[in-house]
Amino acid sequence: MKSPTSENVLKALADYLAEDMLACNREIIARMQSDVPLIPQLAAHLVAAGGKRLRPLLVLAAARLAGYREQGEGMRHIGVAACVEFIHTATLLHDDVVDNSQLRRGLASANAVFGNKASVLVGDFLFARAFQILTAGGSLPVMAILSAASATLAEGEVMQMTTQNDLTTTVDRYLQVIYGKTAALFAAACETGAVVAGADEQTREALRQYGANLGMAFQLVDDALDYSADQAVLGKTVGDDFYEGKVTLPVLAAYHAGNKDDQEFWRRTIEDSDDGQQDGDLEHALELIARTNAIDVTMDKARDYAQAASDALDRMSKAGLAANADMEPLRQLLKDVAIYTVDRAR
Amino acid sequence: MKSPTSENVLKALADYLAEDMLACNREIIARMQSDVPLIPQLAAHLVAAGGKRLRPLLVLAAARLAGYREQGEGMRHIGVAACVEFIHTATLLHDDVVDNSQLRRGLASANAVFGNKASVLVGDFLFARAFQILTAGGSLPVMAILSAASATLAEGEVMQMTTQNDLTTTVDRYLQVIYGKTAALFAAACETGAVVAGADEQTREALRQYGANLGMAFQLVDDALDYSADQAVLGKTVGDDFYEGKVTLPVLAAYHAGNKDDQEFWRRTIEDSDDGQQDGDLEHALELIARTNAIDVTMDKARDYAQAASDALDRMSKAGLAANADMEPLRQLLKDVAIYTVDRAR
Repeated sequence: MKSPTSENVLKALADYLAEDMLACNREIIARMQSDVPLIPQLAAHLVAAGGKRLRPLLVLAAARLAGYREQGEGMRHIGVAACVEFIHTATLLHDDVVDNSQLRRGLASANAVFGNKASVLVGDFLFARAFQILTAGGSLPVMAILSAASATLAEGEVMQMTTQNDLTTTVDRYLQVIYGKTAALFAAACETGAVVAGADEQTREALRQYGANLGMAFQLVDDALDYSADQAVLGKTVGDDFYEGKVTLPVLAAYHAGNKDDQEFWRRTIEDSDDGQQDGDLEHALELIARTNAIDVTMDKARDYAQAASDALDRMSKAGLAANADMEPLRQLLKDVAIYTVDRAR
Repeated sequence: MKSPTSENVLKALADYLAEDMLACNREIIARMQSDVPLIPQLAAHLVAAGGKRLRPLLVLAAARLAGYREQGEGMRHIGVAACVEFIHTATLLHDDVVDNSQLRRGLASANAVFGNKASVLVGDFLFARAFQILTAGGSLPVMAILSAASATLAEGEVMQMTTQNDLTTTVDRYLQVIYGKTAALFAAACETGAVVAGADEQTREALRQYGANLGMAFQLVDDALDYSADQAVLGKTVGDDFYEGKVTLPVLAAYHAGNKDDQEFWRRTIEDSDDGQQDGDLEHALELIARTNAIDVTMDKARDYAQAASDALDRMSKAGLAANADMEPLRQLLKDVAIYTVDRAR
């Protein structure tokens, strides 16, 4: 048997939930329709680009793990999963516009193909559509969780913007940023799954914590990958964060561990990323990051969060676990997803 | 007594609802707060720029007219009114980014001051916050109306984008665009007011139609104003729509009534607005619009919708009108608002 990797544990999870995922994909396609043809065209560009659908997968998994048993038409966790994907897609569309990104998952970004205007507006449409679907679903707790997560997401993005080019950003502040921009929606995805399943408070909280910690691990790995030579394989441009002067943990760790010259280098390239960068700077940044073990620092942190995510699943209520003992393989899969998330960077 | 104008009937309406408006303004300020300081700063820039608050005013007016009697703390129509203003503000922020507008209500636009990125993200925040407030309010029908209106709004904006630079756009299509971009939220504002008041179906529908028709009249007048020499007074740049190649009714009317040379002119300047325009083109466009009475065509259409808005208020249910006979002055004020909306263009 080949050893598990991030990719194949995620695939195993998607396989375990294959029927739910199929229904979710159908729901996503059905609900992004509009009488204005450009909307489904642009939305399909992202949908077709085939993200991992990680967030809807978390909704579905959390719902099943917490005991949601419905099958067939009218499954309530499907609509919630589609909404979470719409909210995520809306933020991707807006991010690519504000960052002027030309690539997304190795393909031309929606703004590169359809323009900024269409990307902003279709993002708005998907966001509104998500709340339409949620309203039709009729669960006020689900709406409360997802509207709060959406606000936190925007706050995280604004906070990230204000920490950009600023090397006085503390590690705590950085962790707040990635909680907002990534972990909050992961947490909400898992929590809404539990709510749809009618889980007790303890199980709901355990799943929320699973999502939050998984999200933190996930973003830390993503930030490490941005300084990893292997990442071109993943369809991302190497050094994006560096060129934008984003203050992520690899940079902070290398900056804090660096000597006077190194710190001078980081200030020039990160604090003045627009005008201060020269040819060869990315290569030098990668050297400094290697020399200061900044990727290890980042990955250790990611590993801590991944472990915390896995541990959270041991805190589901005994009654809940007993009632859903048949879901034990799913619980193991989710633990694997957390643990093997951190191998994406190798 | 001076004759009523758009400005003073709106002021009379705001005065009639002075306590509600005060509470609404307080709610807007309170609910745009965030731990991320840039968010209230940017939001305050728009709030301070002092729009007419027309949409929240409509929520409050419709609620009172339909019999909402609460006073003091915890009035439900206040939160809904604040949400409608947040949704509207979010679209203004995004519009100014995608249109690269430098002015809004005669002041520097938020994107000009804070940058595109912050404007997009704070728009997202306000939209999410609106649905947080609505969820806390707990009315699913209100959420259904406002999430659908938000989706329609985005669709209207995308549709407007696809009709831009396209003189084969039909008048019907243009009317669809302005329904989406403006009238849908006016309709939703009035309808949610009725819902909060617990109005019967007939009154709810009458108020919805009032809002929809008022919104149509309002946008038609706005589009006429963009070709009116007087409009600099209103803090708008003259000819914005022309420079952007927007296909509005003044242009369509002038184009359809024009001779061969005129049509050639419109094709060059509107269909190729980016590269085809020359010095003096706006002046010539204004001449053609004057010669073909295109402003009159637009204003006549606006007057029809304004009359339809006023008439809709006569279709409120007899029971509702009888139960709220003390609100008769408010009903007259709303009729005046509709009728005198069309004098903004003079």
